Amino acid sequence: MRNSRRSEVDPFIVMDVMEAARQAEASGQHVIHMEVGQPGTPAPAGARAALTRAMGADPLGYTVSLGLPALRERIAGLYQDWYGVDLDPARVVVTSGSSGAFLLAFSALFDSGDKVGIGAPGYPSYRHILTALGLTPVMIETAPENRLQPVPGDLPPDLAGLMVASPANPTGTMLDRDALAALIGAAQANGTAFISDEIYHGIEYERKAVTALEISDDVYVINSFSKYFSMTGWRVGWMVVPEDHVRAVERLAQNMFICAPHVSQVAALAAMDCTDELQANMAVYAENRRLMLEGLPDAGFTEIAPPDGAFYVYADVSALTSDSRAFAAEILREAGVAVTPGLDFDAARGAGTLRFSYARSTEDIREGLARLKAFMAAR
Amino acid sequence: MRNSRRSEVDPFIVMDVMEAARQAEASGQHVIHMEVGQPGTPAPAGARAALTRAMGADPLGYTVSLGLPALRERIAGLYQDWYGVDLDPARVVVTSGSSGAFLLAFSALFDSGDKVGIGAPGYPSYRHILTALGLTPVMIETAPENRLQPVPGDLPPDLAGLMVASPANPTGTMLDRDALAALIGAAQANGTAFISDEIYHGIEYERKAVTALEISDDVYVINSFSKYFSMTGWRVGWMVVPEDHVRAVERLAQNMFICAPHVSQVAALAAMDCTDELQANMAVYAENRRLMLEGLPDAGFTEIAPPDGAFYVYADVSALTSDSRAFAAEILREAGVAVTPGLDFDAARGAGTLRFSYARSTEDIREGLARLKAFMAAR
Repeated sequence: MRNSRRSEVDPFIVMDVMEAARQAEASGQHVIHMEVGQPGTPAPAGARAALTRAMGADPLGYTVSLGLPALRERIAGLYQDWYGVDLDPARVVVTSGSSGAFLLAFSALFDSGDKVGIGAPGYPSYRHILTALGLTPVMIETAPENRLQPVPGDLPPDLAGLMVASPANPTGTMLDRDALAALIGAAQANGTAFISDEIYHGIEYERKAVTALEISDDVYVINSFSKYFSMTGWRVGWMVVPEDHVRAVERLAQNMFICAPHVSQVAALAAMDCTDELQANMAVYAENRRLMLEGLPDAGFTEIAPPDGAFYVYADVSALTSDSRAFAAEILREAGVAVTPGLDFDAARGAGTLRFSYARSTEDIREGLARLKAFMAAR
Repeated sequence: MRNSRRSEVDPFIVMDVMEAARQAEASGQHVIHMEVGQPGTPAPAGARAALTRAMGADPLGYTVSLGLPALRERIAGLYQDWYGVDLDPARVVVTSGSSGAFLLAFSALFDSGDKVGIGAPGYPSYRHILTALGLTPVMIETAPENRLQPVPGDLPPDLAGLMVASPANPTGTMLDRDALAALIGAAQANGTAFISDEIYHGIEYERKAVTALEISDDVYVINSFSKYFSMTGWRVGWMVVPEDHVRAVERLAQNMFICAPHVSQVAALAAMDCTDELQANMAVYAENRRLMLEGLPDAGFTEIAPPDGAFYVYADVSALTSDSRAFAAEILREAGVAVTPGLDFDAARGAGTLRFSYARSTEDIREGLARLKAFMAAR
């Protein structure tokens, strides 16, 4: 049967790493997982309890497409709590994870062939989803002196859209208020739709992340319950859109998704009140980050920038290898530590980079760093 | 901010009906809901119990993109149980509802501008999702003598794809084995990808529905846990694809969805063993259908064809009105029964049709039919 050209997206290299790690474990090796992009913790206990109660009391059929009204209102309240931004709940769209939000945003904003700028390095699914929708991703090579975030001077002239992430994956670097405002201003001056991926907000270490909504209402903002709220597998997130885009996004959501999972919406609403458990998770990430920033240079991975947020360290290993894929395979085989080669995030320069995740337990991080140090010493 | 042309999809008219029904209820009127497309029953008790257990034992993070291996295997087994078809679990893709399956299938198969044929009347989201993806829906007007299902002679020559549903929404009519084989043969002879929407399988009354997999392996088959398994709000379904399409669909699923909701996959697996509860639901639909086929003509809706499956009756009311939207509003206002005007399903001929759903309780169906009879007698 026929295959579309738009389906010819690259495989994730991290998937090969995960499969190799699984095989190593199946053959008896113990593996420390520094390749994963998700918390090891479950949804907060209060969220799970709320769902168990709801399952006994409600058939949990379709919700309205924009999401449970109580959840939309609670999310709007988060913008007051976190940023001091007064947000109309009518602008909040509950989505099937940030993945669902990307599909809705790109469909609402762009037509076949339109060019959408995304920073490299960056989350690989941005470009693959754009391709799958018949749109044209344009990679923007970012500079180390800008901490691998785009700046206005990097932008090509004819973009229909620009997507940025702060804190970013794989680097964990953030755009401060001035840097974000400069990008939004440059985009708006050119009629370029601005999309801000804020999925790692809440997981930040030395200062609060800035939301694009502090700067402009004429932007799309995407977030999720996956990371700070520790609910990856639940597939629930949200998007804030300009007031005059709500109806178009609603119609798309009705048709493309019907609604986000009702059970996940119930759990997400309760998760927003589980502050103690979420802050305990944050304390683990903070300690893990401290260990990584000490242990990675100590092991010999000296070319790193301290991440402002998320749970990744992106290391320049170009002095150690010209093939990050082979190097990651060597680290897995010799040290029993799974890490992600940078090629997933930056096809041009990723052969000289690795991403280390510190999303798992502190015990695992200690053991992983010890293994990396022994491996590098013996190399 | 810019809006895409592809986002200009029609609103659902049924949503207006639902909003009018909500307003009527808010002002104190009692409404019988014959407009809804979902069961009133919750997920089976065994499914909910399994999820409660899993939430205490597993962090429920991302699953692999193709879905939990045990669920894929159990779904493959269903093809043996229901149809005597031996299906390789490797061909089963667990999706975020049938909605997610449509997005994956259309992305895997078609490129911008490609023409995809769909029968009218039909589920409105088919054409809207195609539009949102930059593809071109081609409406195929079906004939009453073919029970509103397409036949090979109806097909235009240059289709990249053809999508059929059996049992169909809104008519409930099925394609028998010969009719389905003729359509698949005609599609394959023209290089047209064939997609079979089998979401209402299991809800059938006088004979088993035929799956496209009984006829060919070179087809896409889409199904869901929403209807027979009574799990609409859980957003979990599946798709069976040709063996040589699995990798392409997997890469798209990794990027577009990451995975279907983990909690819903756990519940779905357990739901497949809840035969007694599911058969009890079926007994209700069967009784409701019997009442509808007797009560609708008795009330004066004489132009109906007995549905083979699903929980809808599609009535030709062109002798009663030339404006089904106004007629539906009148029925809601005067009789307190919400029904769906046919315009959602057939823009050309739907001004003369109504869809009646019998998915709710038998008590509601009895009351609704009595109200319809009184309304028509007084008209």
